[in-house]
Amino acid sequence: MNPIDLSAFIRDVPDFPSDGVLFKDITPMLASSAAFPVCIDGLAAAFEGERVDKVIGVEARGFILAAPVALRLRAGFVPVRKPGKLPWKTESREYSLEYGTDQLEIHRDGLNKGDRVVIIDDVLATGGTAGATARLVEDLGGTIVGFGFLMELAFLPGRDRISDYRISSLLTYA
Amino acid sequence: MNPIDLSAFIRDVPDFPSDGVLFKDITPMLASSAAFPVCIDGLAAAFEGERVDKVIGVEARGFILAAPVALRLRAGFVPVRKPGKLPWKTESREYSLEYGTDQLEIHRDGLNKGDRVVIIDDVLATGGTAGATARLVEDLGGTIVGFGFLMELAFLPGRDRISDYRISSLLTYA
Repeated sequence: MNPIDLSAFIRDVPDFPSDGVLFKDITPMLASSAAFPVCIDGLAAAFEGERVDKVIGVEARGFILAAPVALRLRAGFVPVRKPGKLPWKTESREYSLEYGTDQLEIHRDGLNKGDRVVIIDDVLATGGTAGATARLVEDLGGTIVGFGFLMELAFLPGRDRISDYRISSLLTYA
Repeated sequence: MNPIDLSAFIRDVPDFPSDGVLFKDITPMLASSAAFPVCIDGLAAAFEGERVDKVIGVEARGFILAAPVALRLRAGFVPVRKPGKLPWKTESREYSLEYGTDQLEIHRDGLNKGDRVVIIDDVLATGGTAGATARLVEDLGGTIVGFGFLMELAFLPGRDRISDYRISSLLTYA
């Protein structure tokens, strides 16, 4: 059993980014040289023994977790970003927000056809970015091995949006 | 000698993010399961044998390199972000752009007094963000061990802005 309880390193910040939202701040976990490697080990462990060609991180907090997981799994790292941030040719996908829509982009050469892909992010909430990222991967001919999240907010319908895929979450908030 | 030439994995993209700028795109390097670990090994090697408590990454590409370097050096990771992105109490510092100014922020509890800090980013260009990050670290009582960059654009005055510190760059473009 692991002696480190990652949830002790997650800080609740009320009313961020807007009134009534209780934000789960992962920066105390990242800043801990004891907790951060436990988080990365946990995320990678769910996919060890699988062939994984690419690990995708979603801008911006997802980068912090996905890049070390890519290295741990001996895979390449591919960023999924907000519109206009990637310099080369992109595919983009729209997703719904509470009010309105937003988009995510991936480089067209970020994946090769047949690449086996793990998608890592800090939190599974409504599943909007997760669903859009899954569609980007499949548009480029990739196969999704699974999703890995540090935290899952189980009171939101995120899991329903990506129910066709394997989902690993280190912490679940009911 | 290392058999991998990282510069072969950097793609020139003309006129990004604006006309006349030749952007150095690191995504082919990140996507390579051979090149990415060589980059991280190189960045970390400059500071091995030093006591390093925290590694700072600057939003957003800096996160991709700094987080694995933090793990390699057995240090914590601390993000420096654009205004409004960090959820808790922040310190902020202004820096100059070609036209106008921008700001960077760090959590006030991101560093402890006396922490020994390495700052990692993808590119040293004008040195604006590097200089602002150095001031944030020192405002919080940290000591800068040095800066590590994947690329240094030596035709720009970045190095002059942080000339008081140790600077390690894996690739230099003259």
